[in-house]
Amino acid sequence: MSENQFQKLVSSFSALPGIGKKSATRIGFHVLRMDESSFQTWLNGIKEARERLHFCEICGGLTEETICNICESPKRDESIVCVVEQPEDIFFIENTKEYFGKYHVLNGAISPLDGIGPDQLRIKSLMHRIEEGSIGEVLVATNPTLEGDATASYLSHLIKEKGIRVTRIAHGITIGGTIEYSDQYTLGKAIKSRLTL
Amino acid sequence: MSENQFQKLVSSFSALPGIGKKSATRIGFHVLRMDESSFQTWLNGIKEARERLHFCEICGGLTEETICNICESPKRDESIVCVVEQPEDIFFIENTKEYFGKYHVLNGAISPLDGIGPDQLRIKSLMHRIEEGSIGEVLVATNPTLEGDATASYLSHLIKEKGIRVTRIAHGITIGGTIEYSDQYTLGKAIKSRLTL
Repeated sequence: MSENQFQKLVSSFSALPGIGKKSATRIGFHVLRMDESSFQTWLNGIKEARERLHFCEICGGLTEETICNICESPKRDESIVCVVEQPEDIFFIENTKEYFGKYHVLNGAISPLDGIGPDQLRIKSLMHRIEEGSIGEVLVATNPTLEGDATASYLSHLIKEKGIRVTRIAHGITIGGTIEYSDQYTLGKAIKSRLTL
Repeated sequence: MSENQFQKLVSSFSALPGIGKKSATRIGFHVLRMDESSFQTWLNGIKEARERLHFCEICGGLTEETICNICESPKRDESIVCVVEQPEDIFFIENTKEYFGKYHVLNGAISPLDGIGPDQLRIKSLMHRIEEGSIGEVLVATNPTLEGDATASYLSHLIKEKGIRVTRIAHGITIGGTIEYSDQYTLGKAIKSRLTL
């Protein structure tokens, strides 16, 4: 076994999000076994994606153009903006087919320990969009983490001052989940956020 | 969102073993967010590994040379050869620090449905090594699957004819596991393979 060179290959893959050492080892061998033309096709696909894809100048979402389809679309409701931490969150929300407004990507969440304050996030550009006057509701879809909640709370104060409605996505028992297997925080949140039937 | 180009990028990663669509999406965004120099370093690491790493001419394991460290090492017991399906299996067995013999990689297992018979595997080169005369035991460490068991059984007949001892790694309850949570086949095997204390 050639530990050194192979360890470097494994590290290349274990540096990717969600890939542990064992998965990275399997992927490493898979890549070593690819024939040269499959490998080149694979590599070029990744390179081409990096060259062609950009982040939308308005919302910060993914696009091949300067402005993304959602920002350009006259069919999307301009009166509501959904604020998310990462561009991929747009992807997951679009998959639900339950949201028809516009988006705004923060590129992170407030995290003083990591040196990320409001100025490191795309908050100024959000406020500019709000000041333009057509937005009536800001739906804050940051994650239900310490950082995501802090960001939601910060944005809420800032936006309410402008007389705009601020909403937050609901947190509660997952669909198909059970009360027994919900953690205490989620269950507590689900009780506090109870709806009248 | 630019679905098409991004879908291609996601496909590049979901084509890797053990990566689902959601992981591939997260990895795709991670790669898009890398700055150019980190991306080039990442890419070159993978390319360099593919250029430098080969499969050993004797055992089929991973090496930067023509013959691997294990095949060349005079410290490894030449009288026992461990037969594995894939080169990565050597890696996992070496990690146990319980085996000090040589290896032989088959590059697969017998699977008639996939058109893989004995001729598609590195069995001839194994038999050549056995005919050289210094091997006294062949430890078959193919997986406990239909294909791995069929391969073990095929090899066992072939090698026993030469008067060589053939052994198979034990299958049973995992260390730290419980009888309650073992599947019926593993438990059955553990009973059949019981050892006298």
